[in-house]
Amino acid sequence: MSNPLRIGVAGLGTVGTALVNLLDNKRAELIERCGRETVVTAVTARSQRTNRDCDISNAQWFDNPVDLATSDNIDVYVELMGGDEGVAADSVRAALNAGKHVVTANKALLAKHGVEFAKLAEENGTLLNFEAAVAGGIPIIKTMRESLTSNNVIRVYGIMNGTCNYMLTRMEEEGLSFEDCLQQAQELGYAEADPTFDVGGHDTMHKLALLTSLAFGTEIAVDEIYLEGITKITPEDIEAAKDLGYSIKLLGVTQKTDTGIEQRVHPTMVPLAAPIAQIGGVTNAVVVEADVVGELMMTGPGAGGDATASAVAGDIADIAKSRPGHQHVPSLGKPAVSLTPYVKSRMRTHRGGYFIRLNLNDKAGSFAAIASRMAEQDISLESIVQRREANSQNSDSQPVIMITHDTTEEAISAALKAINSDGHLKGDPQMIRIEKLGFDI
Amino acid sequence: MSNPLRIGVAGLGTVGTALVNLLDNKRAELIERCGRETVVTAVTARSQRTNRDCDISNAQWFDNPVDLATSDNIDVYVELMGGDEGVAADSVRAALNAGKHVVTANKALLAKHGVEFAKLAEENGTLLNFEAAVAGGIPIIKTMRESLTSNNVIRVYGIMNGTCNYMLTRMEEEGLSFEDCLQQAQELGYAEADPTFDVGGHDTMHKLALLTSLAFGTEIAVDEIYLEGITKITPEDIEAAKDLGYSIKLLGVTQKTDTGIEQRVHPTMVPLAAPIAQIGGVTNAVVVEADVVGELMMTGPGAGGDATASAVAGDIADIAKSRPGHQHVPSLGKPAVSLTPYVKSRMRTHRGGYFIRLNLNDKAGSFAAIASRMAEQDISLESIVQRREANSQNSDSQPVIMITHDTTEEAISAALKAINSDGHLKGDPQMIRIEKLGFDI
Repeated sequence: MSNPLRIGVAGLGTVGTALVNLLDNKRAELIERCGRETVVTAVTARSQRTNRDCDISNAQWFDNPVDLATSDNIDVYVELMGGDEGVAADSVRAALNAGKHVVTANKALLAKHGVEFAKLAEENGTLLNFEAAVAGGIPIIKTMRESLTSNNVIRVYGIMNGTCNYMLTRMEEEGLSFEDCLQQAQELGYAEADPTFDVGGHDTMHKLALLTSLAFGTEIAVDEIYLEGITKITPEDIEAAKDLGYSIKLLGVTQKTDTGIEQRVHPTMVPLAAPIAQIGGVTNAVVVEADVVGELMMTGPGAGGDATASAVAGDIADIAKSRPGHQHVPSLGKPAVSLTPYVKSRMRTHRGGYFIRLNLNDKAGSFAAIASRMAEQDISLESIVQRREANSQNSDSQPVIMITHDTTEEAISAALKAINSDGHLKGDPQMIRIEKLGFDI
Repeated sequence: MSNPLRIGVAGLGTVGTALVNLLDNKRAELIERCGRETVVTAVTARSQRTNRDCDISNAQWFDNPVDLATSDNIDVYVELMGGDEGVAADSVRAALNAGKHVVTANKALLAKHGVEFAKLAEENGTLLNFEAAVAGGIPIIKTMRESLTSNNVIRVYGIMNGTCNYMLTRMEEEGLSFEDCLQQAQELGYAEADPTFDVGGHDTMHKLALLTSLAFGTEIAVDEIYLEGITKITPEDIEAAKDLGYSIKLLGVTQKTDTGIEQRVHPTMVPLAAPIAQIGGVTNAVVVEADVVGELMMTGPGAGGDATASAVAGDIADIAKSRPGHQHVPSLGKPAVSLTPYVKSRMRTHRGGYFIRLNLNDKAGSFAAIASRMAEQDISLESIVQRREANSQNSDSQPVIMITHDTTEEAISAALKAINSDGHLKGDPQMIRIEKLGFDI
């Protein structure tokens, strides 16, 4: 049997602890399946406290992650600390330069430095694996990088943030407001004390940036992603969507257009009958549409210590099964040096249907004014719902909901701007994009 | 760049033709992603006709697949002929003995000879890849073999035959009889002229046998699978199932029990709200429940030339990216020599709920007799529906539908046997197993 594969783990939070336990508990299985032992030989964490939920007594302790990353005592550096700069970036860079394989679950880090790191890995003949960085336990990275090698991808979209999906599911099922739902999610541990990163869509954005590079062979361009979180979604939107046969999901979408690649993260209306509309709670789902295979969908746990550790351990096992100097699975699907520059398809050219919800001042001619502003932009309407709500008969405004046929973001923006400045509205109009699903080559 | 990887293709039917075209069309992408060229250097097929839908003018022609399989002109032997013996088996065996990598989509062949071939591959330091053999374009083999290395699998189940699922979907949506539905499916090309292999469940059985070995590290035991096709499913069953909140699917299920591994293929009632109940038409879906990652579901095209060729090309790309003599990804997830003997969990100990539909002679005491036979076997009923159908008021029998609480196959069989011999029934009783879904470690 070959020498043991020596693992250095940086970060002993939920995932790090789960990983150390997993490698312990499955020692025999991993030896059998990988043909060699995988053993944690070194660790580092924020503080060297002794009461941990995993046994690190046989591992060498490092105060400094960079020292661990470059230690002669490890073959694989597993970065589970988080952060897109500082010690996470420094230690991964140092590990790769020292010829170590790297496994990380850190999407923010890779969204920023992924191309640099992939190049370093290739120069040094080592592997950079990051299955756990996108959609937790779902093997979407391996699928796109390896199984779909002969495919050209057309579009990838998915629910990649469990907190947002949990909240939208509860808002849909229970009619809760965003604020009430957030508070309950925080109490139950499904949302962080500072939820901005999740509900603002930043987490989904980092994951999408990686999928875009894998899908289209382009350099990672996280700063070019159109971003809109779920904070403005109201129970009225969700109810109106449901009435019209839609569910609202926070999707990350990346797709090829005539002018480049469109990357966007925003609340999206999807048909209730679509498979992705059925994904409730913290579950994640990713759909890949590609020219040869057609449509694949993968669903599973997007977070949690065990599911994430399962993905990290899969990455480690891939390294254990391989042999140094004989790696030809490029981290980003093709060699990092041949990734092409990202060409942005601008959001204003985005085409699709739109859901518009606005409160109209209750004066004669208000609706006619709205309708003519839409017509000015060549926007035709698929449906209009205008009804006074039972409990608001004395209100001086009435809600109007419109679904447009396919149009452009530019046209919708112009129409809404004109409508707004005409002074017929009470409050701001709500606009939610409708995603056309289903795949036909 | 490394030498080209030379591919020999045996079989130029739908999949073989699609593969040759795919490797042609994606030549540049494959070179970039694999770091070397993949080129079809040799072919064989049933007849050497010239009017093919793919260009094989640069490939050497072989009349005999065994000669192709052992030719010095190839590195990878791709077997797409079909058949579980004869030239398919002989040529794969010869290829492995000659040190060639083998890629095949032939589930029947592997269900019979998979362990032997996996051992040969390992002895000869070559790869045996078969992603296309199960669920077409869905990367379930790679996922189970590589991504889930640290997991112990608990249960795998799936819709793995497009013909059956297409038929059940149409029967559900349109109330068609099995016979009418089959005829239409045949006219549309979704079912073979001789449909036995599909509708009898044999195709699903072969696929399940491979998943069992991957899931539990056991030798392939296709002969130990309980098999029941969809030929006896009637519109009455489908309608009654729907009324009770269920959909009927042909599932292959493999799961660990207290006494061994239970493998079964049969029509199964699944809750309408379950994700797998939403899988309609020819689409396939596989669900893996494992101790670390939890529940993963993958859906996509289970057949078709392009989707299957995509999976075959992924297998070829894996070989192109690797280097000879440095392979440590065992075909069946762990080395074939260490696969454990299959220990069968007998069907009579299967536990679950049951749907029973029978026609009761319309005499006083008939139902009481049925109920007491169930009670004798300690079977308790969750629901009973007894109603005279509108259009059968003059009939001398009435349909009774029962859903049982969890019980054993042995108890149900005994109860139905006793009920049958009591003479209260008109015709044979129908029995459909209910699968408990949802996963909780």
